[in-house]
Amino acid sequence: MRTVDPPMSRQVESLLTANGVKVITKTTVDSIVAIKDRLQVRCSDGYSAEGDLVLVVVGVRPQSDLARACDVRTNERGAIQVDRGMRTNRPDIFAAGDCTVTWHRLLERDLYLPLGTTSHKQGRVAGENAVGGDRVFEGSLGTQSVKLFDRVIAATGLREEDARSYGFASLAIDVATYDHKAYYPGATEMIIRLVGDASSGRLLGGQIFGAYGKEVSKRIDTIATALHHRVRVDELNDFDLSYTPPLSSPWDPVQVAAQAWVEARDRQVA
Amino acid sequence: MRTVDPPMSRQVESLLTANGVKVITKTTVDSIVAIKDRLQVRCSDGYSAEGDLVLVVVGVRPQSDLARACDVRTNERGAIQVDRGMRTNRPDIFAAGDCTVTWHRLLERDLYLPLGTTSHKQGRVAGENAVGGDRVFEGSLGTQSVKLFDRVIAATGLREEDARSYGFASLAIDVATYDHKAYYPGATEMIIRLVGDASSGRLLGGQIFGAYGKEVSKRIDTIATALHHRVRVDELNDFDLSYTPPLSSPWDPVQVAAQAWVEARDRQVA
Repeated sequence: MRTVDPPMSRQVESLLTANGVKVITKTTVDSIVAIKDRLQVRCSDGYSAEGDLVLVVVGVRPQSDLARACDVRTNERGAIQVDRGMRTNRPDIFAAGDCTVTWHRLLERDLYLPLGTTSHKQGRVAGENAVGGDRVFEGSLGTQSVKLFDRVIAATGLREEDARSYGFASLAIDVATYDHKAYYPGATEMIIRLVGDASSGRLLGGQIFGAYGKEVSKRIDTIATALHHRVRVDELNDFDLSYTPPLSSPWDPVQVAAQAWVEARDRQVA
Repeated sequence: MRTVDPPMSRQVESLLTANGVKVITKTTVDSIVAIKDRLQVRCSDGYSAEGDLVLVVVGVRPQSDLARACDVRTNERGAIQVDRGMRTNRPDIFAAGDCTVTWHRLLERDLYLPLGTTSHKQGRVAGENAVGGDRVFEGSLGTQSVKLFDRVIAATGLREEDARSYGFASLAIDVATYDHKAYYPGATEMIIRLVGDASSGRLLGGQIFGAYGKEVSKRIDTIATALHHRVRVDELNDFDLSYTPPLSSPWDPVQVAAQAWVEARDRQVA
Protein backbone atom coordinates (compact mmCIF):
# COMPACT_ATOMS: atom_id res chain seq x y z
CA MET A 1 0.00 0.00 0.00
CA ARG A 2 2.06 2.83 -1.35
CA THR A 3 0.05 5.70 0.13
CA VAL A 4 1.54 4.99 3.58
CA ASP A 5 5.00 4.23 4.97
CA PRO A 6 6.19 0.60 5.45
CA PRO A 7 5.34 0.36 9.21
CA MET A 8 1.73 1.19 8.35
CA SER A 9 1.52 -0.97 5.24
CA ARG A 10 2.78 -3.90 7.35
CA GLN A 11 -0.25 -3.35 9.62
CA VAL A 12 -2.46 -3.53 6.55
CA GLU A 13 -0.72 -6.70 5.38
CA SER A 14 -1.23 -8.35 8.80
CA LEU A 15 -4.89 -7.39 8.74
CA LEU A 16 -5.39 -8.86 5.27
CA THR A 17 -3.54 -12.06 6.23
CA ALA A 18 -5.57 -12.41 9.45
CA ASN A 19 -8.71 -12.21 7.31
CA GLY A 20 -7.59 -15.01 4.98
CA VAL A 21 -6.22 -12.84 2.17
CA LYS A 22 -2.92 -14.03 0.68
CA VAL A 23 -0.67 -11.05 -0.06
CA ILE A 24 1.92 -11.51 -2.84
CA THR A 25 4.21 -8.58 -3.63
CA LYS A 26 7.42 -7.95 -5.57
CA THR A 27 6.31 -9.93 -8.60
CA THR A 28 4.79 -9.08 -11.97
CA VAL A 29 1.70 -10.62 -13.52
CA ASP A 30 2.77 -12.07 -16.87
CA SER A 31 -0.56 -13.46 -18.03
CA ILE A 32 -4.13 -14.30 -17.06
CA VAL A 33 -5.27 -17.52 -18.74
CA ALA A 34 -8.77 -19.04 -18.89
CA ILE A 35 -8.72 -22.74 -17.90
CA LYS A 36 -12.23 -24.17 -18.32
CA ASP A 37 -14.45 -21.79 -16.26
CA ARG A 38 -11.58 -20.58 -14.05
CA LEU A 39 -8.92 -17.93 -14.50
CA GLN A 40 -5.27 -18.55 -13.80
CA VAL A 41 -2.93 -15.67 -12.97
CA ARG A 42 0.72 -16.39 -13.80
CA CYS A 43 3.53 -14.34 -12.28
CA SER A 44 7.11 -13.69 -13.35
CA ASP A 45 8.59 -15.59 -10.37
CA GLY A 46 6.66 -18.76 -11.15
CA TYR A 47 3.85 -18.11 -8.68
CA SER A 48 0.37 -18.79 -10.00
CA ALA A 49 -3.15 -18.73 -8.58
CA GLU A 50 -6.63 -19.62 -9.82
CA GLY A 51 -9.93 -17.91 -9.23
CA ASP A 52 -13.45 -17.25 -10.54
CA LEU A 53 -12.80 -13.56 -10.87
CA VAL A 54 -9.71 -11.41 -11.34
CA LEU A 55 -9.79 -7.73 -10.41
CA VAL A 56 -7.08 -5.69 -12.06
CA VAL A 57 -6.20 -2.40 -10.38
CA VAL A 58 -3.31 -0.69 -12.12
CA GLY A 59 -3.69 2.98 -11.26
CA VAL A 60 -5.12 5.97 -13.05
CA ARG A 61 -4.01 7.64 -16.28
CA PRO A 62 -5.37 11.02 -17.39
CA GLN A 63 -7.75 10.83 -20.35
CA SER A 64 -6.64 13.95 -22.14
CA ASP A 65 -6.74 13.15 -25.88
CA LEU A 66 -9.65 15.53 -26.43
CA ALA A 67 -7.73 18.30 -24.69
CA ARG A 68 -4.60 17.75 -26.82
CA ALA A 69 -6.78 17.74 -29.95
CA CYS A 70 -7.84 21.27 -28.90
CA ASP A 71 -4.21 22.37 -28.41
CA VAL A 72 -4.55 22.29 -24.65
CA ARG A 73 -1.14 21.75 -23.05
CA THR A 74 -0.51 18.52 -21.09
CA ASN A 75 2.52 17.49 -19.03
CA GLU A 76 4.87 14.52 -19.51
CA ARG A 77 2.36 12.19 -17.83
CA GLY A 78 -0.44 13.42 -20.09
CA ALA A 79 -2.17 15.44 -17.36
CA ILE A 80 -3.71 18.74 -18.47
CA GLN A 81 -1.64 21.68 -17.30
CA VAL A 82 -3.81 24.16 -15.38
CA ASP A 83 -3.12 27.12 -13.14
CA ARG A 84 -4.68 27.40 -9.68
CA GLY A 85 -7.76 28.95 -11.29
CA MET A 86 -8.12 25.68 -13.30
CA ARG A 87 -7.36 27.63 -16.50
CA THR A 88 -5.62 25.80 -19.35
CA ASN A 89 -3.36 27.58 -21.85
CA ARG A 90 -6.52 28.26 -23.91
CA PRO A 91 -8.47 31.12 -22.35
CA ASP A 92 -11.84 29.57 -23.21
CA ILE A 93 -11.05 26.13 -21.79
CA PHE A 94 -11.00 25.12 -18.11
CA ALA A 95 -10.15 21.66 -16.81
CA ALA A 96 -10.62 19.88 -13.45
CA GLY A 97 -10.38 16.43 -11.96
CA ASP A 98 -8.43 13.25 -12.71
CA CYS A 99 -7.37 14.53 -16.16
CA THR A 100 -5.46 17.51 -14.73
CA VAL A 101 -2.42 18.24 -12.61
CA THR A 102 -3.10 19.00 -8.93
CA TRP A 103 -1.40 21.77 -7.00
CA HIS A 104 0.09 20.29 -3.80
CA ARG A 105 -0.34 22.77 -0.98
CA LEU A 106 2.59 21.59 1.11
CA LEU A 107 5.10 21.07 -1.72
CA GLU A 108 3.85 24.17 -3.55
CA ARG A 109 4.13 22.45 -6.91
CA ASP A 110 1.99 20.51 -9.39
CA LEU A 111 1.70 16.75 -9.02
CA TYR A 112 -0.48 14.13 -10.62
CA LEU A 113 -2.66 13.15 -7.63
CA PRO A 114 -6.13 12.06 -8.76
CA LEU A 115 -8.66 11.98 -5.88
CA GLY A 116 -12.45 12.42 -5.79
CA THR A 117 -12.31 15.10 -3.11
CA THR A 118 -9.85 17.11 -5.19
CA SER A 119 -11.97 16.77 -8.33
CA HIS A 120 -15.00 18.20 -6.54
CA LYS A 121 -13.03 21.20 -5.31
CA GLN A 122 -11.35 21.82 -8.66
CA GLY A 123 -14.71 21.48 -10.44
CA ARG A 124 -16.23 24.18 -8.28
CA VAL A 125 -13.28 26.50 -8.93
CA ALA A 126 -13.39 25.83 -12.70
CA GLY A 127 -17.16 26.35 -12.81
CA GLU A 128 -17.03 29.60 -10.87
CA ASN A 129 -14.17 30.98 -12.98
CA ALA A 130 -15.81 29.88 -16.25
CA VAL A 131 -18.70 32.24 -15.46
CA GLY A 132 -16.42 35.14 -14.61
CA GLY A 133 -15.32 34.36 -11.06
CA ASP A 134 -11.83 34.59 -9.62
CA ARG A 135 -11.54 31.57 -7.38
CA VAL A 136 -8.28 29.85 -6.48
CA PHE A 137 -7.81 26.12 -5.85
CA GLU A 138 -6.18 25.99 -2.40
CA GLY A 139 -4.40 22.73 -3.09
CA SER A 140 -4.37 19.10 -2.13
CA LEU A 141 -2.54 17.35 0.70
CA GLY A 142 -3.26 13.91 -0.70
CA THR A 143 -5.62 13.17 2.22
CA GLN A 144 -7.22 9.75 1.89
CA SER A 145 -8.97 7.08 3.88
CA VAL A 146 -9.66 3.38 3.29
CA LYS A 147 -11.87 0.93 5.20
CA LEU A 148 -10.49 -2.64 5.28
CA PHE A 149 -12.64 -5.22 7.07
CA ASP A 150 -13.18 -3.68 10.53
CA ARG A 151 -10.26 -1.29 10.30
CA VAL A 152 -9.53 2.10 8.76
CA ILE A 153 -6.26 3.44 7.45
CA ALA A 154 -6.07 7.15 6.72
CA ALA A 155 -3.25 9.42 5.63
CA THR A 156 -2.51 13.04 4.81
CA GLY A 157 0.54 15.01 3.72
CA LEU A 158 3.96 13.52 3.06
CA ARG A 159 5.19 10.04 3.90
CA GLU A 160 8.59 9.75 5.61
CA GLU A 161 10.30 8.86 2.33
CA ASP A 162 8.44 11.56 0.35
CA ALA A 163 9.58 14.14 2.85
CA ARG A 164 13.19 12.98 2.53
CA SER A 165 13.09 12.95 -1.27
CA TYR A 166 11.75 16.52 -1.31
CA GLY A 167 14.66 17.69 0.82
CA PHE A 168 13.11 17.87 4.27
CA ALA A 169 14.97 16.63 7.38
CA SER A 170 12.38 13.88 7.60
CA LEU A 171 11.66 12.45 11.05
CA ALA A 172 8.82 9.98 11.65
CA ILE A 173 7.52 8.39 14.85
CA ASP A 174 4.89 5.73 15.49
CA VAL A 175 2.74 5.74 18.59
CA ALA A 176 0.30 3.06 19.70
CA THR A 177 -2.43 4.39 21.97
CA TYR A 178 -6.10 3.83 22.71
CA ASP A 179 -8.78 5.66 20.72
CA HIS A 180 -10.38 6.61 24.07
CA LYS A 181 -9.88 6.23 27.81
CA ALA A 182 -9.01 2.57 28.53
CA TYR A 183 -11.28 2.49 31.63
CA TYR A 184 -14.33 3.14 29.45
CA PRO A 185 -15.53 -0.04 27.67
CA GLY A 186 -14.69 -0.56 24.02
CA ALA A 187 -11.28 1.14 23.78
CA THR A 188 -9.23 -0.19 20.86
CA GLU A 189 -5.65 0.32 19.76
CA MET A 190 -4.88 3.10 17.33
CA ILE A 191 -1.49 3.53 15.69
CA ILE A 192 -0.48 7.03 14.68
CA ARG A 193 2.53 7.96 12.60
CA LEU A 194 3.58 11.58 12.39
CA VAL A 195 6.12 12.92 9.93
CA GLY A 196 7.84 16.23 10.51
CA ASP A 197 10.92 18.22 9.59
CA ALA A 198 13.52 17.84 12.35
CA SER A 199 15.21 21.14 11.41
CA SER A 200 12.23 23.47 11.44
CA GLY A 201 9.84 21.38 13.55
CA ARG A 202 7.25 21.68 10.78
CA LEU A 203 4.45 19.11 10.53
CA LEU A 204 4.63 17.29 7.17
CA GLY A 205 2.18 14.40 7.38
CA GLY A 206 0.27 11.82 9.36
CA GLN A 207 -1.03 8.27 9.04
CA ILE A 208 -3.50 6.51 11.34
CA PHE A 209 -4.51 2.85 11.55
CA GLY A 210 -7.38 1.91 13.86
CA ALA A 211 -10.80 0.37 14.26
CA TYR A 212 -13.77 1.40 12.12
CA GLY A 213 -16.13 3.51 14.21
CA LYS A 214 -13.31 4.90 16.36
CA GLU A 215 -12.92 8.24 14.57
CA VAL A 216 -9.73 7.36 12.70
CA SER A 217 -10.65 9.16 9.51
CA LYS A 218 -11.69 12.46 11.06
CA ARG A 219 -8.59 12.45 13.29
CA ILE A 220 -6.60 12.58 10.06
CA ASP A 221 -8.71 15.64 9.24
CA THR A 222 -7.37 17.42 12.33
CA ILE A 223 -3.88 16.80 10.94
CA ALA A 224 -4.97 17.82 7.41
CA THR A 225 -6.50 21.05 8.74
CA ALA A 226 -3.29 21.71 10.65
CA LEU A 227 -1.19 21.06 7.51
CA HIS A 228 -3.46 23.44 5.58
CA HIS A 229 -2.33 26.15 8.01
CA ARG A 230 1.35 25.19 7.98
CA VAL A 231 2.05 24.49 11.65
CA ARG A 232 4.89 23.03 13.68
CA VAL A 233 4.28 19.55 15.13
CA ASP A 234 4.30 20.92 18.68
CA GLU A 235 1.45 23.31 17.84
CA LEU A 236 -0.90 20.32 17.59
CA ASN A 237 -0.74 20.25 21.39
CA ASP A 238 -2.32 23.71 21.54
CA PHE A 239 -5.49 22.73 19.67
CA ASP A 240 -8.64 22.63 21.76
CA LEU A 241 -9.87 19.19 20.64
CA SER A 242 -12.97 17.48 21.97
CA TYR A 243 -12.84 15.01 24.83
CA THR A 244 -15.17 12.69 26.66
CA PRO A 245 -14.03 9.28 28.02
CA PRO A 246 -15.90 7.16 25.40
CA LEU A 247 -14.39 9.14 22.53
CA SER A 248 -10.91 10.40 23.36
CA SER A 249 -8.50 11.36 26.13
CA PRO A 250 -7.75 14.83 27.52
CA TRP A 251 -4.75 14.77 25.18
CA ASP A 252 -6.20 13.37 21.97
CA PRO A 253 -4.20 10.51 20.37
CA VAL A 254 -3.07 13.00 17.70
CA GLN A 255 -1.57 15.14 20.49
CA VAL A 256 0.01 12.12 22.21
CA ALA A 257 1.74 11.45 18.89
CA ALA A 258 2.76 15.10 18.55
CA GLN A 259 4.38 15.05 21.99
CA ALA A 260 6.21 11.79 21.13
CA TRP A 261 7.50 13.45 17.95
CA VAL A 262 8.73 16.50 19.88
CA GLU A 263 10.55 14.24 22.35
CA ALA A 264 12.09 12.16 19.52
CA ARG A 265 13.33 15.35 17.90
CA ASP A 266 14.81 16.57 21.21
CA ARG A 267 16.64 13.25 21.57
CA GLN A 268 17.93 13.54 18.00
CA VAL A 269 19.20 17.06 18.61
CA ALA A 270 20.75 16.12 22.01
CA MET B 1 -28.20 21.72 27.77
CA ARG B 2 -26.70 25.17 27.84
CA THR B 3 -23.52 24.38 25.94
CA VAL B 4 -25.47 24.25 22.65
CA ASP B 5 -28.15 26.39 20.98
CA PRO B 6 -31.88 25.55 21.42
CA PRO B 7 -32.27 23.61 18.11
CA MET B 8 -29.54 21.23 19.26
CA SER B 9 -30.73 20.99 22.88
CA ARG B 10 -34.19 20.06 21.55
CA GLN B 11 -32.52 17.12 19.77
CA VAL B 12 -31.00 16.09 23.07
CA GLU B 13 -34.36 16.42 24.83
CA SER B 14 -36.05 14.23 22.18
CA LEU B 15 -33.32 11.64 22.56
CA LEU B 16 -33.70 11.55 26.34
CA THR B 17 -37.51 11.33 26.08
CA ALA B 18 -37.28 8.53 23.50
CA ASN B 19 -35.12 6.62 25.97
CA GLY B 20 -37.64 6.94 28.81
CA VAL B 21 -36.07 9.93 30.58
CA LYS B 22 -38.53 12.56 31.80
CA VAL B 23 -37.08 16.05 31.23
CA ILE B 24 -38.33 18.81 33.54
CA THR B 25 -36.94 22.30 33.03
CA LYS B 26 -37.75 25.85 34.15
CA THR B 27 -38.30 24.91 37.75
CA THR B 28 -36.23 24.99 40.93
CA VAL B 29 -35.63 22.16 43.36
CA ASP B 30 -36.84 23.36 46.78
CA SER B 31 -36.07 20.26 48.80
CA ILE B 32 -35.08 16.60 48.74
CA VAL B 33 -36.92 14.66 51.46
CA ALA B 34 -36.32 11.08 52.64
CA ILE B 35 -39.61 9.13 52.77
CA LYS B 36 -38.90 5.66 54.16
CA ASP B 37 -36.12 4.28 51.90
CA ARG B 38 -36.96 6.60 48.99
CA LEU B 39 -36.05 10.19 48.19
CA GLN B 40 -38.60 12.75 47.11
CA VAL B 41 -37.56 15.77 45.09
CA ARG B 42 -39.92 18.74 45.46
CA CYS B 43 -39.92 21.60 42.99
CA SER B 44 -41.06 25.21 43.21
CA ASP B 45 -43.94 24.70 40.76
CA GLY B 46 -45.44 21.83 42.74
CA TYR B 47 -43.85 19.08 40.67
CA SER B 48 -42.39 16.23 42.68
CA ALA B 49 -40.73 12.91 41.90
CA GLU B 50 -39.46 9.95 43.92
CA GLY B 51 -36.40 7.82 43.41
CA ASP B 52 -33.80 5.57 45.02
CA LEU B 53 -30.98 7.89 44.13
CA VAL B 54 -30.74 11.63 43.42
CA LEU B 55 -27.77 12.98 41.48
CA VAL B 56 -27.21 16.69 41.98
CA VAL B 57 -25.20 18.46 39.27
CA VAL B 58 -25.00 22.17 39.95
CA GLY B 59 -21.88 23.32 38.11
CA VAL B 60 -18.34 24.04 39.16
CA ARG B 61 -16.99 26.70 41.50
CA PRO B 62 -13.25 27.46 41.75
CA GLN B 63 -11.66 26.26 45.00
CA SER B 64 -9.33 29.18 45.59
CA ASP B 65 -9.30 29.82 49.34
CA LEU B 66 -5.69 28.67 49.64
CA ALA B 67 -4.69 31.05 46.84
CA ARG B 68 -6.41 34.01 48.49
CA ALA B 69 -4.75 33.12 51.81
CA CYS B 70 -1.43 33.56 49.94
CA ASP B 71 -2.49 36.97 48.56
CA VAL B 72 -3.02 35.53 45.10
CA ARG B 73 -5.53 37.64 43.18
CA THR B 74 -8.91 36.09 42.20
CA ASN B 75 -11.69 37.54 40.07
CA GLU B 76 -15.33 38.27 41.02
CA ARG B 77 -16.23 34.57 40.55
CA GLY B 78 -13.36 33.50 42.77
CA ALA B 79 -11.23 32.18 39.88
CA ILE B 80 -7.49 32.75 40.21
CA GLN B 81 -6.31 35.51 37.87
CA VAL B 82 -3.43 34.26 35.71
CA ASP B 83 -1.71 35.56 32.60
CA ARG B 84 -1.24 33.35 29.51
CA GLY B 85 1.94 31.97 31.09
CA MET B 86 -0.25 30.76 34.02
CA ARG B 87 1.51 33.24 36.32
CA THR B 88 -0.43 34.68 39.26
CA ASN B 89 0.28 38.14 40.71
CA ARG B 90 2.87 36.42 42.96
CA PRO B 91 6.01 35.66 40.97
CA ASP B 92 6.62 32.39 42.80
CA ILE B 93 3.09 31.03 42.35
CA PHE B 94 1.59 29.51 39.18
CA ALA B 95 -1.96 28.23 38.85
CA ALA B 96 -3.78 26.03 36.32
CA GLY B 97 -7.04 24.19 35.88
CA ASP B 98 -10.60 24.57 37.22
CA CYS B 99 -9.48 27.05 39.90
CA THR B 100 -8.24 29.62 37.35
CA VAL B 101 -9.57 31.87 34.62
CA THR B 102 -9.20 30.57 31.05
CA TRP B 103 -8.12 32.69 28.12
CA HIS B 104 -10.67 32.32 25.31
CA ARG B 105 -8.86 32.26 21.99
CA LEU B 106 -11.72 33.57 19.88
CA LEU B 107 -12.99 36.24 22.28
CA GLU B 108 -9.44 37.17 23.30
CA ARG B 109 -10.47 37.60 26.92
CA ASP B 110 -10.52 35.66 30.19
CA LEU B 111 -13.58 33.56 31.00
CA TYR B 112 -14.37 30.99 33.65
CA LEU B 113 -14.54 27.85 31.50
CA PRO B 114 -13.45 24.76 33.47
CA LEU B 115 -12.68 21.77 31.20
CA GLY B 116 -10.36 18.79 31.62
CA THR B 117 -8.63 19.35 28.29
CA THR B 118 -7.89 22.96 29.23
CA SER B 119 -6.56 21.96 32.65
CA HIS B 120 -4.07 19.57 31.05
CA LYS B 121 -2.79 22.24 28.66
CA GLN B 122 -2.58 24.91 31.35
CA GLY B 123 -0.82 22.46 33.68
CA ARG B 124 1.88 21.81 31.10
CA VAL B 125 2.38 25.54 30.54
CA ALA B 126 2.52 26.25 34.29
CA GLY B 127 4.95 23.38 34.87
CA GLU B 128 7.25 24.42 32.08
CA ASN B 129 7.27 28.07 33.16
CA ALA B 130 7.76 27.15 36.84
CA VAL B 131 11.10 25.60 35.90
CA GLY B 132 12.22 28.59 33.86
CA GLY B 133 10.38 28.09 30.56
CA ASP B 134 8.50 30.70 28.55
CA ARG B 135 5.45 28.87 27.27
CA VAL B 136 2.14 30.54 26.40
CA PHE B 137 -1.33 29.01 26.82
CA GLU B 138 -2.87 29.30 23.36
CA GLY B 139 -6.40 29.47 24.66
CA SER B 140 -9.63 27.53 24.84
CA LEU B 141 -12.52 27.43 22.39
CA GLY B 142 -14.80 25.64 24.84
CA THR B 143 -14.66 22.49 22.71
CA GLN B 144 -16.62 19.64 24.30
CA SER B 145 -18.28 16.36 23.51
CA VAL B 146 -20.92 14.25 25.28
CA LYS B 147 -22.15 10.71 24.60
CA LEU B 148 -25.84 10.17 25.34
CA PHE B 149 -27.20 6.65 24.79
CA ASP B 150 -26.19 5.89 21.17
CA ARG B 151 -25.70 9.51 20.19
CA VAL B 152 -22.98 12.14 20.51
CA ILE B 153 -23.33 15.89 20.79
CA ALA B 154 -20.22 17.97 20.36
CA ALA B 155 -19.61 21.71 20.22
CA THR B 156 -16.84 24.24 19.79
CA GLY B 157 -16.61 28.02 19.72
CA LEU B 158 -19.53 30.38 20.21
CA ARG B 159 -23.23 29.56 20.24
CA GLU B 160 -25.52 31.76 18.16
CA GLU B 161 -26.60 33.75 21.22
CA ASP B 162 -23.04 34.03 22.59
CA ALA B 163 -21.90 35.43 19.27
CA ARG B 164 -24.71 38.00 19.31
CA SER B 165 -24.04 39.03 22.91
CA TYR B 166 -20.35 39.57 22.11
CA GLY B 167 -21.26 41.92 19.26
CA PHE B 168 -20.87 39.67 16.22
CA ALA B 169 -23.41 39.73 13.36
CA SER B 170 -24.38 36.22 14.40
CA LEU B 171 -25.78 33.95 11.70
CA ALA B 172 -26.46 30.27 12.36
CA ILE B 173 -27.66 27.52 10.05
CA ASP B 174 -28.62 23.89 10.68
CA VAL B 175 -28.01 21.17 8.11
CA ALA B 176 -29.16 17.55 8.27
CA THR B 177 -27.01 15.24 6.21
CA TYR B 178 -25.68 11.68 6.32
CA ASP B 179 -22.41 10.88 8.07
CA HIS B 180 -21.35 9.00 4.93
CA LYS B 181 -22.56 8.13 1.43
CA ALA B 182 -26.18 6.95 1.68
CA TYR B 183 -25.58 4.12 -0.82
CA TYR B 184 -23.08 2.51 1.55
CA PRO B 185 -24.80 0.56 4.37
CA GLY B 186 -25.09 2.09 7.82
CA ALA B 187 -25.41 5.79 6.96
CA THR B 188 -27.08 7.75 9.76
CA GLU B 189 -28.35 11.31 10.03
CA MET B 190 -26.01 13.95 11.37
CA ILE B 191 -27.17 17.47 12.21
CA ILE B 192 -24.60 20.24 11.95
CA ARG B 193 -25.03 23.80 13.12
CA LEU B 194 -22.51 26.41 12.08
CA VAL B 195 -22.30 29.88 13.56
CA GLY B 196 -20.54 32.67 11.72
CA ASP B 197 -20.33 36.43 11.49
CA ALA B 198 -22.47 37.61 8.56
CA SER B 199 -20.44 40.84 8.17
CA SER B 200 -16.94 39.40 7.97
CA GLY B 201 -17.79 35.83 7.01
CA ARG B 202 -15.73 34.63 9.97
CA LEU B 203 -16.36 31.19 11.45
CA LEU B 204 -17.41 31.47 15.10
CA GLY B 205 -18.59 28.03 16.18
CA GLY B 206 -20.08 24.65 15.40
CA GLN B 207 -22.30 22.03 16.98
CA ILE B 208 -22.88 18.47 15.76
CA PHE B 209 -25.44 15.86 16.80
CA GLY B 210 -25.14 12.36 15.40
CA ALA B 211 -24.70 8.66 16.07
CA TYR B 212 -21.92 7.28 18.29
CA GLY B 213 -19.26 5.67 16.07
CA LYS B 214 -19.96 8.06 13.18
CA GLU B 215 -17.06 10.44 13.81
CA VAL B 216 -19.16 13.26 15.28
CA SER B 217 -16.63 14.26 17.92
CA LYS B 218 -13.60 14.46 15.64
CA ARG B 219 -15.59 16.39 13.02
CA ILE B 220 -15.98 19.07 15.69
CA ASP B 221 -12.18 18.96 15.91
CA THR B 222 -11.91 20.00 12.25
CA ILE B 223 -14.02 23.05 13.16
CA ALA B 224 -12.00 23.62 16.35
CA THR B 225 -8.72 23.46 14.41
CA ALA B 226 -10.17 25.89 11.87
CA LEU B 227 -11.28 28.26 14.67
CA HIS B 228 -7.78 28.03 16.15
CA HIS B 229 -6.53 29.51 12.87
CA ARG B 230 -9.26 32.17 12.56
CA VAL B 231 -10.80 31.33 9.20
CA ARG B 232 -13.86 32.42 7.23
CA VAL B 233 -16.69 29.87 7.02
CA ASP B 234 -16.15 29.47 3.25
CA GLU B 235 -12.51 28.45 3.83
CA LEU B 236 -13.75 25.16 5.36
CA ASN B 237 -14.54 24.17 1.76
CA ASP B 238 -10.85 24.40 0.86
CA PHE B 239 -9.69 21.85 3.45
CA ASP B 240 -8.48 18.54 2.04
CA LEU B 241 -10.52 16.26 4.32
CA SER B 242 -10.56 12.48 4.11
CA TYR B 243 -13.17 10.60 2.12
CA THR B 244 -14.20 7.03 1.49
CA PRO B 245 -17.87 6.02 1.03
CA PRO B 246 -18.22 4.24 4.44
CA LEU B 247 -16.88 7.27 6.29
CA SER B 248 -17.78 10.51 4.54
CA SER B 249 -18.72 12.17 1.25
CA PRO B 250 -16.43 13.99 -1.22
CA TRP B 251 -17.66 17.14 0.51
CA ASP B 252 -17.53 16.23 4.18
CA PRO B 253 -20.70 17.04 6.20
CA VAL B 254 -18.76 19.94 7.78
CA GLN B 255 -18.22 21.36 4.26
CA VAL B 256 -21.87 20.77 3.28
CA ALA B 257 -22.78 22.88 6.31
CA ALA B 258 -20.19 25.52 5.37
CA GLN B 259 -21.66 25.84 1.88
CA ALA B 260 -25.19 26.12 3.36
CA TRP B 261 -23.94 28.91 5.63
CA VAL B 262 -22.35 30.78 2.69
CA GLU B 263 -25.62 30.53 0.74
CA ALA B 264 -27.68 31.67 3.75
CA ARG B 265 -25.38 34.67 4.13
CA ASP B 266 -25.70 35.49 0.40
CA ARG B 267 -29.51 35.39 0.73
CA GLN B 268 -29.34 37.65 3.79
CA VAL B 269 -27.16 40.17 1.94
CA ALA B 270 -29.31 40.02 -1.26
